Amino acid sequence: MASQTEVEHPRKAFGWAARDPSGFFSPFNFSRRETGEKDVAFKVLYCGICHSDLHMAKNEWGNSTYPLVPGHELAGVVTEVGNKVEKFKVGDRVGVGCLVDSCGTCENCCENLENYCPQYTLTYGAKYRDGSITYGGYSDWMVADEHFVVRIPDGLPLDAAAPLLCAGITVYSPLRYFALDKPGLHVGVVGLGGLGHMAVKFAKAFGAKVTVISTSPYKKEEAIQHLGADSFLISRDQDQMEAAKGTLDGIIDTVSAVHLLLPLIGLLKSHGKLVMLGAPEKPLELPIFPLLSGRKIVGGSLIGGIKETQEMMDFAAKHNVKPDIEVIPIDYVNTAMERLLKADVKYRFVIDIGNTLKPSP
Amino acid sequence: MASQTEVEHPRKAFGWAARDPSGFFSPFNFSRRETGEKDVAFKVLYCGICHSDLHMAKNEWGNSTYPLVPGHELAGVVTEVGNKVEKFKVGDRVGVGCLVDSCGTCENCCENLENYCPQYTLTYGAKYRDGSITYGGYSDWMVADEHFVVRIPDGLPLDAAAPLLCAGITVYSPLRYFALDKPGLHVGVVGLGGLGHMAVKFAKAFGAKVTVISTSPYKKEEAIQHLGADSFLISRDQDQMEAAKGTLDGIIDTVSAVHLLLPLIGLLKSHGKLVMLGAPEKPLELPIFPLLSGRKIVGGSLIGGIKETQEMMDFAAKHNVKPDIEVIPIDYVNTAMERLLKADVKYRFVIDIGNTLKPSP
Repeated sequence: MASQTEVEHPRKAFGWAARDPSGFFSPFNFSRRETGEKDVAFKVLYCGICHSDLHMAKNEWGNSTYPLVPGHELAGVVTEVGNKVEKFKVGDRVGVGCLVDSCGTCENCCENLENYCPQYTLTYGAKYRDGSITYGGYSDWMVADEHFVVRIPDGLPLDAAAPLLCAGITVYSPLRYFALDKPGLHVGVVGLGGLGHMAVKFAKAFGAKVTVISTSPYKKEEAIQHLGADSFLISRDQDQMEAAKGTLDGIIDTVSAVHLLLPLIGLLKSHGKLVMLGAPEKPLELPIFPLLSGRKIVGGSLIGGIKETQEMMDFAAKHNVKPDIEVIPIDYVNTAMERLLKADVKYRFVIDIGNTLKPSP
Repeated sequence: MASQTEVEHPRKAFGWAARDPSGFFSPFNFSRRETGEKDVAFKVLYCGICHSDLHMAKNEWGNSTYPLVPGHELAGVVTEVGNKVEKFKVGDRVGVGCLVDSCGTCENCCENLENYCPQYTLTYGAKYRDGSITYGGYSDWMVADEHFVVRIPDGLPLDAAAPLLCAGITVYSPLRYFALDKPGLHVGVVGLGGLGHMAVKFAKAFGAKVTVISTSPYKKEEAIQHLGADSFLISRDQDQMEAAKGTLDGIIDTVSAVHLLLPLIGLLKSHGKLVMLGAPEKPLELPIFPLLSGRKIVGGSLIGGIKETQEMMDFAAKHNVKPDIEVIPIDYVNTAMERLLKADVKYRFVIDIGNTLKPSP
């Protein structure tokens, strides 16, 4: 962790910040830059709470700086655009996800994969090129280069659109990249949280048969009745797991805790793909022969590029793919974090910034 | 291990067999089936010694049956064909690799991936559908369904062709499947044995830049001067490994010993592929975050299908890709196994069956 002196920008902003590794949030006055010629400024109306916000607020990854204003699932309405902005105008419904900048010149940037640029700038808790700190969406307004701004289609409510900017693209991108987006495939989803429930919905929207794999038998009804999964496996039930061997074309594994890969690899058909989205703190055990004998792979994926995020947003609007959210006022954020720690949310908290974030008197 | 009563077939055959887990080889009389209507019979002229022959002779995988006649890199000349054989005639130069049968009806078989058929029949130490034992190429002649017989192009010497049937296809197939066969890519090869030296040669033939990664500094000259690799990394030299971070599009890892994956994953560019061909006895440690942050994969591959084996053979002939071999007489096989255990061969022993295997008087 580190503390820093804030660079004073010309425009006032207001949000809620964690001040130290207790992770407790309180009101915070700060500033944002002027709207540059390629910038879009927008009023934040909703911001999703990602589990990484909690990790960062408590400095659990060791790289947090304070005061920390989290939030990388911002949705709102454009209030101002720079004179060279081409894609947006005042009044447009827009969002910003995990990234606000990247080098723009590396191989990944040139292929619209800003999320793999070695020099990307995260939406909060990072530094812009000028050295000033990035503040996220637990705040009243945002300014970002239009390249990193995504249009939210009219059919998609802004509160539901917000979590798509991180949770949505994080599952959509690997389903596409690892070719698990074809109708008729059988896709497994491990873990039924913010990412997992979106993985079920997107995989279904792509036309896949979806099996949820979970340690918790009580999630079965929820997975099938409510989220629309086709079947459910209790990962600790060896008979169930044995019977399902070799049935899945791919698995989206959203679990961040240390867990066994062998049973999951066993569920895959030949040439199947196990895609990790969570990052356990310790290395996992990888048995090699099961990979060889079925030409299987274990891969990873991290959010998605901006172009693909727009594609995902348009796809979600067209196919009515929306996260299940619990909308909360900003002054509930500390309670929400406690509940998030216990996985007590179905499935994403979204802060109603527009109606509840009021500047301190 | 198990011992069995041999089914008596109508045709006499002669070879060298291991009789027990000592792995010691001695002359052995056995029999093979009549040439069926879709069968090709051929005189074995050369047979490569694969490291798995040593494992099997000593029952190190626990599934050996004795007497065991190894050899799944057979090259020779057709002596007889069944009346429904379409692809071969007497006098043709042919080979047989690791497989002599598969179900023919599963999804993998239908896609010419007999090597991933759950019911494939290995060339030795397995059972044909009729229950009789399969005997490999340390023997005077062979009979196999023409589907599992590969044509050896005229330009390719039979002794050099033999190891292509296992070592060759085992590296060729993943280079193709994982799209590491494009000119201009940068491919790493870990381990410089029977598989590794073929990986270098095929990757070069595909037009890749090749870096050999090895624990042994003394292999550098060999790798570069003799095998044609472009560069060499000592895996224990942290400065070298650090400097080479993010430079490889893919890695062919042929090492069967337990080893670290993290340094290899670090060598990959974003979206790079680490392909395992060796099967360490214990699971390896897989750090997940490095996979996520570069959308990298760890995969496995096992030999190749018959159609692809023919394609590989034709490619090898066209591009003059040949293994480095040491041709030995059959009565040297026990010494060869001792040397193989010490990795004392560059890079494949090939038994001169045609000139040295004589029936016992």
